[in-house]
Parts: sequence; C-alpha cells; structure tokens
Amino acid sequence: MRYFEDFEEGQVIELGSRQLNEPEIIAFAREYDPQPFHLDHEMGKASLFGGLAASGWHTGAIIMRMFADTVLKETDSMGSPGVENLRWLKPVYPGDTISARTVILETRPSSSRPNMGIVKHRWEGRNQAGEVVMTLVATNFFGRHPQPEGE
Amino acid sequence: MRYFEDFEEGQVIELGSRQLNEPEIIAFAREYDPQPFHLDHEMGKASLFGGLAASGWHTGAIIMRMFADTVLKETDSMGSPGVENLRWLKPVYPGDTISARTVILETRPSSSRPNMGIVKHRWEGRNQAGEVVMTLVATNFFGRHPQPEGE
Repeated sequence: MRYFEDFEEGQVIELGSRQLNEPEIIAFAREYDPQPFHLDHEMGKASLFGGLAASGWHTGAIIMRMFADTVLKETDSMGSPGVENLRWLKPVYPGDTISARTVILETRPSSSRPNMGIVKHRWEGRNQAGEVVMTLVATNFFGRHPQPEGE
Repeated sequence: MRYFEDFEEGQVIELGSRQLNEPEIIAFAREYDPQPFHLDHEMGKASLFGGLAASGWHTGAIIMRMFADTVLKETDSMGSPGVENLRWLKPVYPGDTISARTVILETRPSSSRPNMGIVKHRWEGRNQAGEVVMTLVATNFFGRHPQPEGE
C-alpha cells in the first residue's frame, strides 16, 4: 500500500505502455469525438494530422488507465480536483505504442482534511519513437499513512 | 458551415444535454479509470463522493461529444493543441443529466497558418440542479472563411 507520505518531489514513476489499434481508436471517436480525422483514413490524410489519429481524449483516457493500474491501484486514492496544461503535442496513430510516466512535482498535506494529502504530478506520454505526444499536470488526493494508536 | 470568423468574444453556445446511466458509467470506468468509487456503489458511498460517481474523464468525453455534435460538426475543425484548467467541481452520479455550454473567450488568426484561426473558449457542464460539475478552457483551430477569387 502506498500513502501520501510515499510520494516525494522529483520521483519518477513509470506507468507502463500500451499499443493502440485502429478499431479502438475509431470506436472511441465514434462514441466521444466523432470528427472525420478520428474516424476515417482519407479524412485523416487530408487533415493537419496527415492520417487517421486518435482523439486526444482517448490518449488521455489511456494514460489515466495506466496511472490507475500502477499508482492508484496500490494507494488510498481520494480522487482528483482536476488537471492543468493538458497538451496534445503529436498525433497518435493506429499501431503507436504509448509509454507513460509521471513525475512528482509537489506534495503537501491537506489543510482542511487531516487524513488527506495532495500530490501534484506531471504525466508524459511518448510514442515508440520517443516523441512526447501528450503531457498534463494532475492533482490527486491520497490518504495519509495511518498513525499507530496513541501517538 | 461555420468558420473562424463566425466566433466572437462573449458568444455563448449551448451544447445540449445528456443523461448518464449507471451501466455506461461503470463501462467507461472499467475500461479507462477502474477506481473502486467509479465501479461500485458501496465503495462510492464510503468515498469522498458519497456514492458511485462517473470518472472525470468520462464527464469530459461526454461534453467533448456534445461539442463535436453541435459546434465541430458544422465547422472546418482543424484540431486542438490542448486544454487548461480542467476542474471536476462536483461528482456526477448515475441518472444525472449534464447540460453543457461554451463561452467564447478569445479569437485570433494564426500567425503561421493563414487559412486557420484560433479560438479559446470555456466549457461549463451543469447537472440537473444547475450545479457546475466541470469546467475547462479549450483551444480549437478552425478554418477561415474562403475569400472570393482574385481578392
């Protein structure tokens, strides 16, 4: 189990990697972001992306899943108030493998909830060529390490 | 067809509304954000959310869909470089109906691409009680109005 106290500034946590295939890119786009360049090869080629490209919301959701499977799964996660500076820097194409990590920027105890700590961290997602495709700065709430009775 | 020139500061565009049901909240969470309070009623009740709550990424994706269906569908959309200040302000519960709108904050022609304009706008999603559940500031690229030949 990982608690608020286990995060520290500068720490880098690898979140794993995942390949995105064309059917899932199109399925996500059809449901949540049905723009022509997310749905169709020809329309993708004619666009700024130069080919069918994943919705940026899909890339974000994929990295969210990696973060949940690695970091959140083993913590007392108490949710997130939001994210800052979400940047879609390069298109994500079918067959791309996204590797992600997060860098801890800042940790502080909550002033209003003594059982909670606040961690600010920066996600980076890269493709198989090592190019950064997406970044954001997230804030997450984590439970604090239980104190022994009587202390 | 709507072009860059058709957006102006202060304009408010209604994006429609949509009810979120429990199966879709759980299905999204299972795929992209498998935290206990997004998957299970009892775990939701025991959490800060006070009940099973939608993943914030799900709420964002739902509003993205509304934005695509209303604004993007009728424009020459050229993608988005990212979003700022994504805030999850209130939990979204099964059965909630989210109504969204966007407010145009700023418009400017692209300095590097003469056929493109840049629009900054603020999404607001509210629940059926009128409470704001999510906001963000998005930047989108739009094609410019075609000029008549010879001008």
